[in-house]
Amino acid sequence: MARNKHPEETVNLILDVAFRQFMEKGYEQTSIQGIINELGGLSKGAIYHHFKSKEDILIAVTEKIMAESNRMLAGIRDRTDLNGIEKLKMIFKKSISRPVQNDIFTVAPDFHKNPKLLFSLLHDTIEEAAPNYILPVIEQGISDGSIKTDYPKQLAELILLAANIWMNPMIFASSEEDSFRKFMVFQQMLQGFGLYVIDDEMLQRLQELTSIYQKSR
Amino acid sequence: MARNKHPEETVNLILDVAFRQFMEKGYEQTSIQGIINELGGLSKGAIYHHFKSKEDILIAVTEKIMAESNRMLAGIRDRTDLNGIEKLKMIFKKSISRPVQNDIFTVAPDFHKNPKLLFSLLHDTIEEAAPNYILPVIEQGISDGSIKTDYPKQLAELILLAANIWMNPMIFASSEEDSFRKFMVFQQMLQGFGLYVIDDEMLQRLQELTSIYQKSR
Repeated sequence: MARNKHPEETVNLILDVAFRQFMEKGYEQTSIQGIINELGGLSKGAIYHHFKSKEDILIAVTEKIMAESNRMLAGIRDRTDLNGIEKLKMIFKKSISRPVQNDIFTVAPDFHKNPKLLFSLLHDTIEEAAPNYILPVIEQGISDGSIKTDYPKQLAELILLAANIWMNPMIFASSEEDSFRKFMVFQQMLQGFGLYVIDDEMLQRLQELTSIYQKSR
Repeated sequence: MARNKHPEETVNLILDVAFRQFMEKGYEQTSIQGIINELGGLSKGAIYHHFKSKEDILIAVTEKIMAESNRMLAGIRDRTDLNGIEKLKMIFKKSISRPVQNDIFTVAPDFHKNPKLLFSLLHDTIEEAAPNYILPVIEQGISDGSIKTDYPKQLAELILLAANIWMNPMIFASSEEDSFRKFMVFQQMLQGFGLYVIDDEMLQRLQELTSIYQKSR
């Protein structure tokens, strides 16, 4: 095969095919050879030129999803028609209603075998998403009087750690009942901080997502 | 060197030397060769017979520390002279006053390079320590009326996730001020669940631990 003159297109093609296979078969059942077979004649050498391992592909796929999530968060953060607590509520609502979320719940990698992804998710949550998207919203809430806390940075981190890591069925496999109970404790935690942002509609949506994940196991 | 007839002694010797070097020099600055040099003639082959990599040694060292921590937790859990909330308070008090804790704060591995250890810490926290040591204490508290929750399992997980992962300076490097502010948010979270278990003495101890870690950086 001729040398590819557009490496970014090759990378995107690899990620699209890999993501679809992760969704359809699950991460563990996907092989690099299986991805190559769908890449229309791309050689094994060409894929290894961009990614050292299947885990590296999973990390790149996850980073692409995170980038989309971060664009959504930036959009809400930058709105001018909502106060702080309304934005926080909107963020939870949108986070659990994005269509792509349905797909994520079917990948289900085994973190025993993919420790790098866990680091990547934890790092993105605490070092990127919390300070860049949640903190400014909490700070706005402090200014407009809709949120009260003396520790906005730490509150942003703790909320996202619970939401993105502990309640993430990709990381901790949970029964439907367990997921529901985690959410109830999460809601109680938020209320303890004076944040009344979870409503019945969001609760119902979360239960739907949990069912999708359970079916794919 | 003659074949070792007591492999568990060899393993313990390797872990003791490695732990001391991790403490003295930090994880990144410790080499397998440096560990071998202190092992009194043990060959490189002998160490690789037990551990595949420096990271594997770090995991074994961490598991040994966790095992000691778990024995302490089991001791408190099984006391007959305290009610549930008193045991929970005792657990927090002992966790931050164990002498070994001073040492842990000087290891400071870089999780970019040691993702397996992060998985190991997260797994132990949620799958082992929370259900085996915190959950029974919360359940006792529910029975004796000193703790009120409808979701003991999930509450145990969330508390330990915050305490062992988020507030762990081995995982998230924090300034002294940041550590203090995390602890204040943690205290507020516990109070939101009706758990008044943090006192001034514990707060002071935590500030001491944070200083030790900062000096080793």
